[in-house]
Amino acid sequence: SGFVHVKNPHLDSMEEDVLYHLDLGTKTHNLPAMFGDIKFVCVGGSPKRMRAFAQFMQQELGLPGAGEDGPDTCAGSDRYAMYRVGPVLSISHGMGIPSISIMLHELIKLLYHAKCQDVTIIRIGTSGGLGIEAGSVVITDMAVDSSFQPRFEQVVLGDVVVRSTELDKDLAEELLTCSREIADFPTLIGHTMCTYDFYEGQGRLDGALCSFSSEKKLEYLRRAYDAGVRNIEMESTAFAALCGLCGLKGES
Amino acid sequence: SGFVHVKNPHLDSMEEDVLYHLDLGTKTHNLPAMFGDIKFVCVGGSPKRMRAFAQFMQQELGLPGAGEDGPDTCAGSDRYAMYRVGPVLSISHGMGIPSISIMLHELIKLLYHAKCQDVTIIRIGTSGGLGIEAGSVVITDMAVDSSFQPRFEQVVLGDVVVRSTELDKDLAEELLTCSREIADFPTLIGHTMCTYDFYEGQGRLDGALCSFSSEKKLEYLRRAYDAGVRNIEMESTAFAALCGLCGLKGES
Repeated sequence: SGFVHVKNPHLDSMEEDVLYHLDLGTKTHNLPAMFGDIKFVCVGGSPKRMRAFAQFMQQELGLPGAGEDGPDTCAGSDRYAMYRVGPVLSISHGMGIPSISIMLHELIKLLYHAKCQDVTIIRIGTSGGLGIEAGSVVITDMAVDSSFQPRFEQVVLGDVVVRSTELDKDLAEELLTCSREIADFPTLIGHTMCTYDFYEGQGRLDGALCSFSSEKKLEYLRRAYDAGVRNIEMESTAFAALCGLCGLKGES
Repeated sequence: SGFVHVKNPHLDSMEEDVLYHLDLGTKTHNLPAMFGDIKFVCVGGSPKRMRAFAQFMQQELGLPGAGEDGPDTCAGSDRYAMYRVGPVLSISHGMGIPSISIMLHELIKLLYHAKCQDVTIIRIGTSGGLGIEAGSVVITDMAVDSSFQPRFEQVVLGDVVVRSTELDKDLAEELLTCSREIADFPTLIGHTMCTYDFYEGQGRLDGALCSFSSEKKLEYLRRAYDAGVRNIEMESTAFAALCGLCGLKGES
């Protein structure tokens, strides 16, 4: 059907659904009227960058008000920022899997309540490249964990549930084709590694704690490269797992 | 000695240390002059609340400028907000372990470069109470993971390292004594459970995904209560582990 769906039998019997961290709700807002025609959602870590992206989209789509700041739809919450431009929603998610997970649960419920159909979601956040030209864009064909496995381990009531982290292959190819129309925009398809930690988890030598040598760091990063990893960030496995389960066509 | 310390042999040979997510650095800022006399650091998730807390401290300490907004020391970064009031630093950390970890790595290096001594750090964020009166303050004697164990599992170059999550017992008792001087402020000491996820990880029935019944949820929360857990949040194990390793007297 193409509808965004939830996998929660409790939800339909709830009288009201408060999307707390987005400062939105089913009783306080007319979600179908506000968001029913959304077709694209772009997410990234930083609120300022997602505001800048919304302004850029406004110009690209030739919509009135280009160059001006649209209102932050989540202004009542300082957890996330959200801007709407035509059929595009631009939302920040903070840093790390727990932070993006809270946002995605509430975003998916928002799109579900709004009866959105055929929604494409793309994470456009920053990441550290691995063995590639600085400034390159990596389109993720597979999100992998710190053991280079395509899985997301979610703890549910104390038990570990393993979820798939597959992303949309056609969308990845389509984005690669688009990138070829833009000059000086090195773009490639590769695996994206997702870690829970920025310093020790990604082999950085400049954190408050570092127990490994420069050689051990390089050995780990080389193993990651050989496994197909081309960039490292902190959200992709949870993003792929959640979007995949709820009928959102996802890329990262 | 009481000095805040780092556990990283690489750090002293670096020419410059850029605290990227705080928008501070050893070459661009005189960190000892700016922060050398800091004695207390209070951290919490929301930037607006940490600004409000700084204003409250300004009043409580009888410092000039009460009621006015002090400058955000991290204004060049939209990842965290930081306010300084006398010997107190008030900083936001976002939501979840990865987000607070990045902030703590850079905060600990900041306090180290500034040659701070005898620093107490307290997390004052929100949490969900378990079997206690709404509005209660839980002072953490032990941070535990979703299996109710006092440990923090940190992945370092793909391998799991287990760290202790002990907090300062004397400080916990001191805070409890302080709370008794304030009327209508229900306060208790208990274990704090830290999860990676807000919805499925904490047994909520209103996420986009929910595969368990209300009974299974209550059974899990009852087991947590029986293990000594009195509140649930998303940062305490990483907070306890990192602060403990670097000589910060910590409470949560």
